[in-house]
Amino acid sequence: MAVEQVTFVEVSPRDGLQSDDAMVSTADKVELITRLVSAGLTRIEAVSFVNPKRVPQMADAEAVMARLPRIDGVSYIGLVLNRRGFDRALAAGVDEVNSVVVVTDTFSQKNQGMPTAESVNTWADIAGPARDAGLFSSVTVSAAFGCPYEGAVSAARVREVIEAVAQSAPDEIALADTIGAATPNMVRERIAIAQEVAPNIALRCHFHNTRNTGLANVLAAVEAGVSVIDASLGGIGGCPFAPAATGNIPTEDTAYMLEGMGISTGLDLGALIDLTAWLEGVVAHPAPGMLAKAGLFPADSSTEAAVCLT
Amino acid sequence: MAVEQVTFVEVSPRDGLQSDDAMVSTADKVELITRLVSAGLTRIEAVSFVNPKRVPQMADAEAVMARLPRIDGVSYIGLVLNRRGFDRALAAGVDEVNSVVVVTDTFSQKNQGMPTAESVNTWADIAGPARDAGLFSSVTVSAAFGCPYEGAVSAARVREVIEAVAQSAPDEIALADTIGAATPNMVRERIAIAQEVAPNIALRCHFHNTRNTGLANVLAAVEAGVSVIDASLGGIGGCPFAPAATGNIPTEDTAYMLEGMGISTGLDLGALIDLTAWLEGVVAHPAPGMLAKAGLFPADSSTEAAVCLT
Repeated sequence: MAVEQVTFVEVSPRDGLQSDDAMVSTADKVELITRLVSAGLTRIEAVSFVNPKRVPQMADAEAVMARLPRIDGVSYIGLVLNRRGFDRALAAGVDEVNSVVVVTDTFSQKNQGMPTAESVNTWADIAGPARDAGLFSSVTVSAAFGCPYEGAVSAARVREVIEAVAQSAPDEIALADTIGAATPNMVRERIAIAQEVAPNIALRCHFHNTRNTGLANVLAAVEAGVSVIDASLGGIGGCPFAPAATGNIPTEDTAYMLEGMGISTGLDLGALIDLTAWLEGVVAHPAPGMLAKAGLFPADSSTEAAVCLT
Repeated sequence: MAVEQVTFVEVSPRDGLQSDDAMVSTADKVELITRLVSAGLTRIEAVSFVNPKRVPQMADAEAVMARLPRIDGVSYIGLVLNRRGFDRALAAGVDEVNSVVVVTDTFSQKNQGMPTAESVNTWADIAGPARDAGLFSSVTVSAAFGCPYEGAVSAARVREVIEAVAQSAPDEIALADTIGAATPNMVRERIAIAQEVAPNIALRCHFHNTRNTGLANVLAAVEAGVSVIDASLGGIGGCPFAPAATGNIPTEDTAYMLEGMGISTGLDLGALIDLTAWLEGVVAHPAPGMLAKAGLFPADSSTEAAVCLT
């Protein structure tokens, strides 16, 4: 039942950088995305079209899009939370739009200024124009494994929200563990729900490694048939609920695991390791990803190992 | 096929501290172990009986053992690499001895000063006396998923070494990913080999999180029927092949995942989080574990979450 290949949606340029203290320049964002494409990424969450007063890190979305190289087979995604954001995304020339519906009302209110049901309607307002414009559309169902305000999130609630979102027929639904609380059985349970409720809509998963379960959740997901995974170079970014906690699952670590299992990712791990080092320089802090620190295995060159007595 | 409960072998006092720059006092080691027991750990790798010139951090093994509280149902393990170490362990009153056989000759030579076959004989010299003394014995089959010197390790080689080790009938064999190179399919493959070669010997797994695959490998292991897992409080320690890389899988993170899957661990996660903070103070550096940074979920108290737009 495990998939044979996995496509990554690379979220570092948006989900990664939006919550970083560093204000990354437009030129550096363009370099990041260009090098991600060179390393094999084909779907990249490049920008968001949200209120620049709330997220100043993303204020240059149009400028980034204007300077990106356009390459066959590479799709740039813009995050949009309302019709105004959609119009900006369309004008800027994105290939895909991603909307967000938060499963719990409290979190939805804080994140998007409206309860869940209203944000489902907001997505519905975007769905038609996206289709008319020929843009691939996806909806991230956020906090699908737990909410920082309301705590545990029931499977019944997730089912209800997926059903509501599916009515406007996105091309893809992403189940998001926004705060990194999920464990593998819960991942299987909620994937099964999405597969049952929306059998004709592609399914993607978005995990955070906040409590170290991120790659175990990826394992559960790909073995449940999910072939599209969100990840962030170096694991940068993610929801800053716990300042010391890490965020998104690192692209290169996840690809290492999948490639080790014989699941093709199309990614150049060495290039991603080099790019992580570059990105650490740009944001001026270490990234939580581990492969870039430990190196590939087997290594290209011999390793000088210490004695360890186990 | 997944197990319903998992027993942890807590390795922080030995595998964790042996490679730490901090020289932890005997009193702090005793406090660590005592508090681990209070948090629910029942098998603890407390000390090693190796050459104190090579591993000065473990030079006080006898003093630690003499001061530990002896509690019904709690088993203290001593690492022994030869007959002389075994005699010290027996005199010090350990409940279990753990030996190590490294799968590859190069690494075995560097770690124990002898090729693999000779270290199998060394283990055989310990097996009889351990049985005579009524001590539980285990053998860690190290570098079973990759060697820092020889690179990839074949399944056939692992089978051969397990067969050789099993001839002296340890109570338990531990498959160790000493350098954190394993991925889940390889874990399943090598567990199946051990189960086939030594069906009457208990099986334990020892994973490192060096490349972020540690908990995914635990998931694979428990779903293949392994019910005993090595882990280290806070994820401290481990083989220092890559100075920036993390080592052992963190006990509290692993238990969070398993408990979230309905697999009972008997551990008090809150107590382990508190103890991790204490241990970080003792060793004077942060531990790589993530649960202690992020906190339990659902949290006991309400969380003030930031807006994150996914």
